[in-house]
Amino acid sequence: MNYMSRAISLSKRALGSVSPNPAVGALVVKNDKIVGEGWTQPPGQNHAEIMAIEQAGELSKGASLYTTLEPCNYHGRTPPCVTKIIESQIKKVHISILDPNKNVYGQGLKKLQEEGVETELGELSQKATTNLEGYLKFVTKKSPFITAKFAMSLDGKIATKTGDSKWISGEKSRRFVHQLRADSDAIMVGVNTVIKDDPKLTARNKSGKPNSHQPLRIVLDTNLRTPLNSMILKQPGTTIIATSNNNNSHFSNIPNVEIWEIPKHNSRISIPDLFSNIYNRGISGVLVESGGTLLGTMFDQKSIDKVIAFISPKIIGGENSTSPVIGIGIDSVNNSIQINNQKWRKFGDDMAMIGYCNNS
Amino acid sequence: MNYMSRAISLSKRALGSVSPNPAVGALVVKNDKIVGEGWTQPPGQNHAEIMAIEQAGELSKGASLYTTLEPCNYHGRTPPCVTKIIESQIKKVHISILDPNKNVYGQGLKKLQEEGVETELGELSQKATTNLEGYLKFVTKKSPFITAKFAMSLDGKIATKTGDSKWISGEKSRRFVHQLRADSDAIMVGVNTVIKDDPKLTARNKSGKPNSHQPLRIVLDTNLRTPLNSMILKQPGTTIIATSNNNNSHFSNIPNVEIWEIPKHNSRISIPDLFSNIYNRGISGVLVESGGTLLGTMFDQKSIDKVIAFISPKIIGGENSTSPVIGIGIDSVNNSIQINNQKWRKFGDDMAMIGYCNNS
Repeated sequence: MNYMSRAISLSKRALGSVSPNPAVGALVVKNDKIVGEGWTQPPGQNHAEIMAIEQAGELSKGASLYTTLEPCNYHGRTPPCVTKIIESQIKKVHISILDPNKNVYGQGLKKLQEEGVETELGELSQKATTNLEGYLKFVTKKSPFITAKFAMSLDGKIATKTGDSKWISGEKSRRFVHQLRADSDAIMVGVNTVIKDDPKLTARNKSGKPNSHQPLRIVLDTNLRTPLNSMILKQPGTTIIATSNNNNSHFSNIPNVEIWEIPKHNSRISIPDLFSNIYNRGISGVLVESGGTLLGTMFDQKSIDKVIAFISPKIIGGENSTSPVIGIGIDSVNNSIQINNQKWRKFGDDMAMIGYCNNS
Repeated sequence: MNYMSRAISLSKRALGSVSPNPAVGALVVKNDKIVGEGWTQPPGQNHAEIMAIEQAGELSKGASLYTTLEPCNYHGRTPPCVTKIIESQIKKVHISILDPNKNVYGQGLKKLQEEGVETELGELSQKATTNLEGYLKFVTKKSPFITAKFAMSLDGKIATKTGDSKWISGEKSRRFVHQLRADSDAIMVGVNTVIKDDPKLTARNKSGKPNSHQPLRIVLDTNLRTPLNSMILKQPGTTIIATSNNNNSHFSNIPNVEIWEIPKHNSRISIPDLFSNIYNRGISGVLVESGGTLLGTMFDQKSIDKVIAFISPKIIGGENSTSPVIGIGIDSVNNSIQINNQKWRKFGDDMAMIGYCNNS
């Protein structure tokens, strides 16, 4: 077994419920045997390293610790992990990537070395980054990491000319979307999607039951057109209505609804201001499941970090069918937004592309 | 080595230059050694079986023949293959699929059996069908086999809002398109593509040089708007202008240009009438490389048999960018045209889907 690879797998369990903390995985290995496993617990609770060390107990002495991110060396909501590592007499720490958080960067590693703990840095760093990408952008750019998700037909349509979109992608793709939602801190749509499709936007299990933890739901609703009887307002978890309309008191009585007042830019909610709000709320990973208008605006503004596109082998056609990305768009193919590090993955008959936008 | 698989590979060499005859591959095998190989030669010349047997010469006696299609038992432009097989004293004939041509169907096989030749039917029949799909539709439906090809961005655009489309797909995809052209009997576009992109529509080799044999080029040009200085009119090979405008004498002096007068249907060239012309000209496989208008019309009319779609990982956006399939389109996702037996194949960074339309 590759221990760092196992630590990365464990880190995935933390996704969606630990923001603004990083989703870290950790292992304690003694005599080539795993004696402790951990992953970041919700804010204020144990970090991954602590969880793994506590599970290993006395066996930590002389053991190796594998962690996907540099252990912290400062007292936040919890005591520093580095102190715990030293106290537990771990002999060697394998760190996949350094924590760019200015309170940590390199200092956790340095402290361990100063205390005579052996260290190794960089193992599977590219792979480890995937589950930390939201956190890494959050701390370095002070902005949330934005993933655009859409499902289109082979001729690039997300709905027919009558607006029908159920279902363009197949069951396996839709199942994966629930996993994506569960791994996200928030899901974002435009109000048009709420009005047209009236989605629940919950993360649900195979039998359709909502997960116990739900990502935040954010509706971009410049003029406050969200119908008061929308499904989205009745689901477990919190719904945030981001609006430029300050006449919003009729929403204040709805349980679990928050109103964010955001200034306008070009008659729509200002995306940079929205992102500031998201950042200040401590949300690091947002999944945008909107239609082409909002995604178009966000691509125009180079606000999308990652794209997950499902392509279903069917032809829809029609002049007034809907495209996944509208907005202003680009003039010349040479100026299109390139998707890098793409991975193509089959879900039943559908193909999905997962990749990263080159916004430079 | 799988001999039938080799015969199928050989059949590919005949694609694009033997219509309306089938692209067949054949092998003569003696003592587990290939002693003759053949593929259909241009009309009036040797069929695959004859070419393989002539190459094997005396070694055919007691040998096995592998052929992708049932040998003919009638005198067309060439003598019957069955007669040659019997005369050469081939001991056993492996046939992948029966020839649905009413002059042959089952009779070639029967004649061989009556003459004491051992036979085996059905080996790799699905795989053998691919290189024969044009012929099979041609003889059973009396209509050409139509393949739609398009290259789009990840957000389903074939051109930006300014009409730029160079190049959405990568070099490896475009290289494959030249192979597709070479394997086709004809390439079809709408006049808008000629006016906007002024393409050559030739099959070219890696260094850009046109192949010695070129597929026919068919332009759908209801009102005869093809510019007289179009590139398409100056390339090696024949260009057919299909038009409803009978005031077309100014095209008659251009070398290698044919005019087809086709009646209109809903102010556009009637597709069924066009297909009759194509059939009567003996063209079995057509590659449609048009824009969204013509492809939309053809999908609306369920005229497309096969789709080859290249998807390039870039985002174009824009309300007025161009979609690969327009036309009337469908109302409900449930009524969309399903693509069956899809294969997904990477070309550099691009993904291509190759599949068959369910037009039932």
